[in-house]
Amino acid sequence: MVNQRLDTGWQPCKSDSSGGSNSGESSKESSRCSTPVLDTDRTDRLRDKMRRRIESGDHWFSLEFFPPRTAGGAVNLISRFDRMGSGGPLFIDVTWHPAGDPGSDKETSSMMIASTAVNYCGLESILHLTCCKQTKEIITAHLNKAKRLGLKNIMALRGDPIGADWEEEEGGFNYATDLVKHIRHEFDDYFDICVAGYPTGHPEAESYEDDLKHLKEKVDAGAHFIVTQLFFRAETFLKFVKDCRAIGITCPIVPGIFPIQGYHSLRQLVKLSKLEVPEEIMQVIEPIKDNDAAIRNYGIQQAVEMCRVLLASGDVSGLHFYTLNREVATMEVLRQLGLWAEDPRRPLPWAVSAHPKRKVEDVRPIFWASRPKSYIYRTQDWDDFPNGRWGNSSSPAFGELTDYYLFYLKSKSSKEALLKMWEEELTSEDSVYQVFTNYITAEPNKSGHKVMCLPWNDDPLAPETNMLKEELEKVNRRGVLTINSQPNINGKPSSDPIVGWGPPGGYVFQKSYLEFFTSSENVNALLQVLKKYEPRVNYHIVNVKGKNITNAHDMQPNAVTWGIFPGKEIVQPTVVDPVSFMYWKDEAFALWIEQWGKLYEDESPSRMIIQYIHDNYFLVNLVDNDFPLDSCLWQVIDDMFELLDAPPEPLDQENLQ
Amino acid sequence: MVNQRLDTGWQPCKSDSSGGSNSGESSKESSRCSTPVLDTDRTDRLRDKMRRRIESGDHWFSLEFFPPRTAGGAVNLISRFDRMGSGGPLFIDVTWHPAGDPGSDKETSSMMIASTAVNYCGLESILHLTCCKQTKEIITAHLNKAKRLGLKNIMALRGDPIGADWEEEEGGFNYATDLVKHIRHEFDDYFDICVAGYPTGHPEAESYEDDLKHLKEKVDAGAHFIVTQLFFRAETFLKFVKDCRAIGITCPIVPGIFPIQGYHSLRQLVKLSKLEVPEEIMQVIEPIKDNDAAIRNYGIQQAVEMCRVLLASGDVSGLHFYTLNREVATMEVLRQLGLWAEDPRRPLPWAVSAHPKRKVEDVRPIFWASRPKSYIYRTQDWDDFPNGRWGNSSSPAFGELTDYYLFYLKSKSSKEALLKMWEEELTSEDSVYQVFTNYITAEPNKSGHKVMCLPWNDDPLAPETNMLKEELEKVNRRGVLTINSQPNINGKPSSDPIVGWGPPGGYVFQKSYLEFFTSSENVNALLQVLKKYEPRVNYHIVNVKGKNITNAHDMQPNAVTWGIFPGKEIVQPTVVDPVSFMYWKDEAFALWIEQWGKLYEDESPSRMIIQYIHDNYFLVNLVDNDFPLDSCLWQVIDDMFELLDAPPEPLDQENLQ
Repeated sequence: MVNQRLDTGWQPCKSDSSGGSNSGESSKESSRCSTPVLDTDRTDRLRDKMRRRIESGDHWFSLEFFPPRTAGGAVNLISRFDRMGSGGPLFIDVTWHPAGDPGSDKETSSMMIASTAVNYCGLESILHLTCCKQTKEIITAHLNKAKRLGLKNIMALRGDPIGADWEEEEGGFNYATDLVKHIRHEFDDYFDICVAGYPTGHPEAESYEDDLKHLKEKVDAGAHFIVTQLFFRAETFLKFVKDCRAIGITCPIVPGIFPIQGYHSLRQLVKLSKLEVPEEIMQVIEPIKDNDAAIRNYGIQQAVEMCRVLLASGDVSGLHFYTLNREVATMEVLRQLGLWAEDPRRPLPWAVSAHPKRKVEDVRPIFWASRPKSYIYRTQDWDDFPNGRWGNSSSPAFGELTDYYLFYLKSKSSKEALLKMWEEELTSEDSVYQVFTNYITAEPNKSGHKVMCLPWNDDPLAPETNMLKEELEKVNRRGVLTINSQPNINGKPSSDPIVGWGPPGGYVFQKSYLEFFTSSENVNALLQVLKKYEPRVNYHIVNVKGKNITNAHDMQPNAVTWGIFPGKEIVQPTVVDPVSFMYWKDEAFALWIEQWGKLYEDESPSRMIIQYIHDNYFLVNLVDNDFPLDSCLWQVIDDMFELLDAPPEPLDQENLQ
Repeated sequence: MVNQRLDTGWQPCKSDSSGGSNSGESSKESSRCSTPVLDTDRTDRLRDKMRRRIESGDHWFSLEFFPPRTAGGAVNLISRFDRMGSGGPLFIDVTWHPAGDPGSDKETSSMMIASTAVNYCGLESILHLTCCKQTKEIITAHLNKAKRLGLKNIMALRGDPIGADWEEEEGGFNYATDLVKHIRHEFDDYFDICVAGYPTGHPEAESYEDDLKHLKEKVDAGAHFIVTQLFFRAETFLKFVKDCRAIGITCPIVPGIFPIQGYHSLRQLVKLSKLEVPEEIMQVIEPIKDNDAAIRNYGIQQAVEMCRVLLASGDVSGLHFYTLNREVATMEVLRQLGLWAEDPRRPLPWAVSAHPKRKVEDVRPIFWASRPKSYIYRTQDWDDFPNGRWGNSSSPAFGELTDYYLFYLKSKSSKEALLKMWEEELTSEDSVYQVFTNYITAEPNKSGHKVMCLPWNDDPLAPETNMLKEELEKVNRRGVLTINSQPNINGKPSSDPIVGWGPPGGYVFQKSYLEFFTSSENVNALLQVLKKYEPRVNYHIVNVKGKNITNAHDMQPNAVTWGIFPGKEIVQPTVVDPVSFMYWKDEAFALWIEQWGKLYEDESPSRMIIQYIHDNYFLVNLVDNDFPLDSCLWQVIDDMFELLDAPPEPLDQENLQ
């Protein structure tokens, strides 16, 4: 008998003999092997994740971006992170832009973009860092800041001289090796370090062999893996790997893939990197150089073919893509390679942050479901994250509301686009109801524009919410202005494509939830109706001044999403929490004015309608505790309308003034 | 609009308009109103619980016991606490026996009996304390010890002079008032204090009026409520209450009820308390004084009639019973009054401890399910109890195994009775299998005795386990010696009479669990079979030397019982925890020798059979994670037997040596 522990936890690839659990799901699972969401993925270091993927023979990819020039560009890039992040990259990296104040707090700096990717988009990220023309003190300061912001990985580069030829500097950093040594010296093993490899030799190197020697020095100094410069032929890379291995470089070497996306970008890149484009490629491209679509199609086809050779060689596990901050070409290459994960598993129902401090975070209030970045921002100063019961956390204060208009929380739509969606001119509260209704139905409004977002929801309805569409439309039309909801779920497999989350073999549950703004008249009737639903329905009803009515017991949180998994404790990632609802209330009411009211002139009728709603409506949330039964929340609203429609009779009126 | 919080949480009495939840359960709930298990019952002080019951118009009862003379008497009294505790007393109290070393650590002391009631039986308990002939230092020491042991309530009494007439003592305590003042002075508001009232006046008081004045002084000194001396006529008590109120005593006054149980006990009590038995009672009793059953029946009838008058008066909310440490009469009176809760709600699946330190305890390993007192004992030195996730606790060490042979962990059966159940002489492992099988079937063994307990289970099968009886019998017969199991439950109402627990309106769940001893040959086959059940079944397999085989991931606990309740976070009171399993293993193996093997002579064949099992068998636990499906654990065992029965063929043998 040996002291034997068989690790059979999360790995979906190993669960093919699952003995009948989740019948019908196992084949789906095995087709998803390229994107296992491992428990350890939240806690492991990049080097370990990479090693695990390589050992398992799994294929993966990563994505490189550069910092944008403008705040608008930053907003776009962040939403691109979200979209491309859904494909399941092992990591993304953000280049260091020495001319762009890269270590600053500017919304376009390399540092802030990488930090946003980690903290708000939950992406494992590498920050590039170049060392030429920098003092050790400045480099250390950058690294300290990166660490503070939750960045854990650095791509250590020499960097290109700005506008001049290279000159060695006394006491400064002259080679990437110096930077690697410095990082290891100052930060020990804290950062995972990546260095650059040049499959055809660095343009400034004395020889290919000499360059290989320098690469070996960088690795020996403490780098964990290599990402290569782009190249155009698979054999270039495969020879390079062979040569690296021959001189004793044993760490992972990731090929840099550049799908040609246009004639000019190719020319520019080639000039900068001093690479030669092979004759066979130039021959294809030159004749079509003015046909962007044709060049892109060729680039995709060429990249796919090269990647297939690389992956088939057995020497390549992952592919690193130079995206040029564009989506289409890279995503198409990945799709054709079968590496794009259309439906990645979610470890939790909400997108986790990759900040090390938040790696144990496993519960959040439901209120910020559509504004996760705002939630992360407003809780960024918390020292600990609730990792068990919500109520166990020491309830630190939420960040001030005035702080939350971050650039990446701005609407992706312009003022003009918003006015088209939300009406140039509002004539009554009813016209506001119509905007909400159009958002739900996704039908064009009277001026022919689709309402693609609301101040509380920057994206169209979630697939899950779509299940409630018909009911939502009905109630919004009558002034029950819904901003958040979820259906009840009584034990669906954790692999369910719409409501599933967490490791395979589990079951997920939800209580039905509905959150809306509505008038005080409606609230008056609602309170009458809710008496009939005690104790099945829990409610919190609050106006902008903070007056609130609730039947929540002892201010305890109510778990509204939970999951049961093999060999694990219960996970309850979403709660309706009375304390944080008061913070959310401030944000939810402020969005009326900040995002909608301010589109109109001061004192304009439209502005005054929004202001009236802000001042007089209530924010209501309802939870149906009886999750195994059909939700009664629609019946609650129906009953409320019925009471309002009934001929007036002497009622046991509650004083709402 | 007012800032209004409606407290509608747990109270089953208020849930009559539950709007359709738990269809069919609401009438059951309302019939249980006399024993609501409130969340706050675990955390509130006795005075607050009492106040709440009085305000709600609810009727309740409490029970008085005296300390036993012998260790055997203590074991019996503790199991009486468990049985009578199930009827739902608001509190019990334990008298102070000055001649019996009442503050000592002796198993029969007042202090230890009261402490056991609190800690191991989960009963709200009052410790009596008399002050005559005691120094302040000794009284303070007693109170400090009581506090340390988790006692929160004191009945402050003067006490009777021992063998002599009363003499005032300089600097000592002469009246209960002095003791009340002392407790409040030394312990502020820590203890709830009860004092005694005399409906006919204290026998030594100058007058009834004078005695009332003394009572008022005791209350004014800081007592929270009054329990009265026994009396024989309802009007005696009702006049007393009226007189108390008239002089400004406003605290609760609880009538002391003495169901007459026998001629001699009545005579003795009357002599001690210097009470007069009314003529109408003596007239009935004298003629039947040698007929115990007749006197008891009369006593029950007389008490019921008097209690009905008291409760109907509107001045009485609770009844305090002088049990004389007997069950039948008091229980019968309570049943006839409708106050005995046959099926009290369980706040959690296991019996909670009433020690203030454990009031937040809400998760335990499943292993001690049949030995909760042992678990409490072995964790009594823990400073904190896991109140969220099991894994969050700082995992202090369990108490040493050598410590756990407490008097109240001893079997309730004598050595002779045990030998009759477990065989005077064992002839083979098979004869051990037969003992286990007879325990499951509750059928007599070959010498005609029923097996009512096993070393791991001091009580007959739980109703829940009874659901598994047929399967259990089959496997025990073949040497799968089960000691703990639970069926899977997929969302039964929390009010379910067999598996329900927690507040009303919730749903409870379980994963199927099976724990057994079995031979290494069986384990060999089992391990082959378990491969087919990955990852559905989690297992831990360990022998006495601690060699263990498991497929548990990362040593995480596996939640096997959990509940979902209105307006609350998920509760997961029972886990299979790999760390504590190693402690349980020591206890479970030791019970073979300590409780069974040692019944036989050293070196006897019977002793050697038990020793062989102890040395060579494995303890196995299995969890079927797929709780919504029919349990596969019986199939696992069946497959194991099938493999064992198959004709030998070359197998992929695992080395278990």
